[in-house]
Amino acid sequence: MNEAEDYIQLTTRLQESNRLGGVMGILHWDQEVIMPTGAAESRAQQLGALAGVLHEKTIHPEMGRLLDRLPRDNENGFTAFEWCNIQEARRDFDMATRIPKTLVTELAELSSRAHQVWVKARAENKFSDFAPVLKRLVDLKIKWAGYVSPEMQTYDANIDVFERGTTQKNITPVFDRLKAELIPLIKSIQESDYQPETTFLSGQFPIDHQEALGRKISEEMGFQFDKGRMDVSVHPFCGGSHPTDVRITTRYRTDNFVESLYAVIHETGHGLYEQGRMQDGRDLPVSEALTMAIHESQSLFWERMIAQGRPFCARYLPSLAETFPQNFKDVTPERFYEAVNVSQPSLIRVEADEVTYPMHVILRYELEKGLFDGSIQVEDLPELWKAKMVEYLGVEPATDTLGVLQDTHWSGGAFGYFPSYTLGAIYASQFYQTLMQTKPDIEKQVEAGNLTPVREWLGSQIHQKGRLLSVPDLVKQVTGEGLNPEIFLDYLKNKYRQIYRLN
Amino acid sequence: MNEAEDYIQLTTRLQESNRLGGVMGILHWDQEVIMPTGAAESRAQQLGALAGVLHEKTIHPEMGRLLDRLPRDNENGFTAFEWCNIQEARRDFDMATRIPKTLVTELAELSSRAHQVWVKARAENKFSDFAPVLKRLVDLKIKWAGYVSPEMQTYDANIDVFERGTTQKNITPVFDRLKAELIPLIKSIQESDYQPETTFLSGQFPIDHQEALGRKISEEMGFQFDKGRMDVSVHPFCGGSHPTDVRITTRYRTDNFVESLYAVIHETGHGLYEQGRMQDGRDLPVSEALTMAIHESQSLFWERMIAQGRPFCARYLPSLAETFPQNFKDVTPERFYEAVNVSQPSLIRVEADEVTYPMHVILRYELEKGLFDGSIQVEDLPELWKAKMVEYLGVEPATDTLGVLQDTHWSGGAFGYFPSYTLGAIYASQFYQTLMQTKPDIEKQVEAGNLTPVREWLGSQIHQKGRLLSVPDLVKQVTGEGLNPEIFLDYLKNKYRQIYRLN
Repeated sequence: MNEAEDYIQLTTRLQESNRLGGVMGILHWDQEVIMPTGAAESRAQQLGALAGVLHEKTIHPEMGRLLDRLPRDNENGFTAFEWCNIQEARRDFDMATRIPKTLVTELAELSSRAHQVWVKARAENKFSDFAPVLKRLVDLKIKWAGYVSPEMQTYDANIDVFERGTTQKNITPVFDRLKAELIPLIKSIQESDYQPETTFLSGQFPIDHQEALGRKISEEMGFQFDKGRMDVSVHPFCGGSHPTDVRITTRYRTDNFVESLYAVIHETGHGLYEQGRMQDGRDLPVSEALTMAIHESQSLFWERMIAQGRPFCARYLPSLAETFPQNFKDVTPERFYEAVNVSQPSLIRVEADEVTYPMHVILRYELEKGLFDGSIQVEDLPELWKAKMVEYLGVEPATDTLGVLQDTHWSGGAFGYFPSYTLGAIYASQFYQTLMQTKPDIEKQVEAGNLTPVREWLGSQIHQKGRLLSVPDLVKQVTGEGLNPEIFLDYLKNKYRQIYRLN
Repeated sequence: MNEAEDYIQLTTRLQESNRLGGVMGILHWDQEVIMPTGAAESRAQQLGALAGVLHEKTIHPEMGRLLDRLPRDNENGFTAFEWCNIQEARRDFDMATRIPKTLVTELAELSSRAHQVWVKARAENKFSDFAPVLKRLVDLKIKWAGYVSPEMQTYDANIDVFERGTTQKNITPVFDRLKAELIPLIKSIQESDYQPETTFLSGQFPIDHQEALGRKISEEMGFQFDKGRMDVSVHPFCGGSHPTDVRITTRYRTDNFVESLYAVIHETGHGLYEQGRMQDGRDLPVSEALTMAIHESQSLFWERMIAQGRPFCARYLPSLAETFPQNFKDVTPERFYEAVNVSQPSLIRVEADEVTYPMHVILRYELEKGLFDGSIQVEDLPELWKAKMVEYLGVEPATDTLGVLQDTHWSGGAFGYFPSYTLGAIYASQFYQTLMQTKPDIEKQVEAGNLTPVREWLGSQIHQKGRLLSVPDLVKQVTGEGLNPEIFLDYLKNKYRQIYRLN
């Protein structure tokens, strides 16, 4: 058997796993969107059975034999496309086989139980009930890191699951820069005499009108509804099973359309990444989205860089006025632009705006870092949370439900995930700056309602690149430089100083 | 390892397969109801991957070892519940392992291709295009039967897949009796001077009104919407993934509500069977529906015995009048009863009424029988079809599209499936007669809108029995006798002689 044949066998196995992964995607989507409530238990068992099959496929001995025979260094002329698939398979195989089965089982069981405990603790505002399982989860994830990536710091190994190639060494200085600049900016915004008027964003907005408008804008962004769907779920998300089956969701409130509409735009950003994947290898790892931060950069690009920008606001105000005539009769594009960009410190991360959001993330990052290096104990989290909220945002949660218990991530053992949100925001601002430099008329295009060049640029620069490049290499290739918080900071400072009439 | 431990290991494997089977159910439902059109190819590949996994699980060597160690005769005190699971596992294992892999592959590929060929041939009315693949499918299914059940006649082996325990020896005399009685009955109905008036069934029926009415009736039949859903698909069906996740569909036309409403009732009948499965072993074969005919007996019981009966028509006419006031102002229960029971020969099986439907089935049964015993050649099917339609129903299809090409079954290699429809109709009439004898006030209950005793009786007599008994034993236990076409014939003759004022 030669290497070319081994590679073909490997891709056959990878394709099978990929398709079963797509099936998993449908099960999750169905569970969130459409499943009868009484089916919760049977669905959990179906998900468990399928996860078991996927695990079996990942660690299959034949997979090990193929990877043993395939080279560890690409000296034999595999194309970048092929080499990427080999590397991805090796990564998954190593990650899955290095952990003792007992640890896998204990982590799975504990995560499942921890979620229940967290739901109850949050509802009852009792962090002390959650603390013991959280402590155990951190311990297990430290142990887990020792098996998976013994050469890495344990928190880095956890970050690596979501944001491979990025470590605390990259993140800490960037987050420190953000803190240094954003804390005073947030304070000046709060203290500004000028506050945008937003009353016209309140009112009664029929759901069918909201939905029609959301679909129209999503379609104009380029979302292909013959290869995707838009539905309703408790928390908006982008899921599905394949680039030809991408499913976004939103949620509706009759007294607020902005939240829903911008959720549609955000999830469409994710959806365009999935629909825009390279044509070859759509069932192989090489075509998959790169990291969580790059995915988030795409959703935030559309939500913030485009849809919260002046040209977009000017373009779509007439559509809004047509959809909700009562509210938008006398609203100018500038007033609408200012209203959707209001910034204000708040207690809840998911409701935060683009200026304050990074502080929520940095707070969590610093706490996770401390939990993993041993400088912070689980018991100290509630007080540290409050202190940091006061320091970073000037607000203090009255309860742990509004503080340390608000996020689901830790209860699922997902440590190291939070940084991706803010890394994504930074990348989005860097990509936008490059797009503006490459296509100086892009804002004119957006204002004329032509969103195609935006989507096509993101497609050719990012979506179609799959996993061929690492994040640093991709960002370098697109923008000419690496992760650069200054561009993000400049963007925020320019925008918000102007809106809030600062200086 | 003792037998008790072997049994536990066996059930663990069976549960896993059952859960993956449930996942398959969701994929199919999703495909028919909600999947974006552009995802057809990726979905086919996902289904293929999951089918492959299920096949691997079925023929897993450890499954073979367990079945080798477990006894072939129940002398060791397994309960009926346990013994059923062992027997079911053995049946599936034998069926899957006896066929050479090349034949499995050829059948899978040919069925898939044949479906495409059939769709085109039907659209273009060109049987000659379909004939070669149909011929090949019959040949392969004869070969297949020789591997799976060498002791059976080849057509019996095919029937056995859908209707185990029932062979041509049982079916032929029953179908001959039906022919002898139904052909003259159909003729007299056609020639009767009295024809029920049906004009009030035509009109404009808003879909949301139809849907609300369908849901109300389905719920009153006992369908649990917290353990199921009702949606829209091109062809109504009952699917889902588990007794707690049962999904029925219907379709709507604005100019006809009867078709849709009775589809809801029919599919609810299937759905109640699934939701009503025994509480223990819901992830094991023992709790599964018995055969296609028994499943169909449940849907037809509700559709025909109950919903096309006088008490139901009397009960729900006011609901109809409320839902569609224009049409039902002056309609009496008797007129409504007659209108929903109009019988008339037609070319298309799926549109046929309960008197003419069996003739469509018998025609197909006789043709399949001939194809498998060699007395009929594929080339002769179009002419034979026409001749039999004239003989049995007095109508002749002008094209093969309206004749031999109308059904999808053969294109998928599903020979031996058709008899189940009519066996189900016969069983439904037998069950109904028993219910009437057991609970003489049942029609009064239905007329009072109390459908619960009907559902509970079917539940305790059939749904909760799972696969503990064979079909003949179950029918004997419920009705005191075996398959008996006379009860079905008496039911039809009494009912239709009265409606059409015959004799």
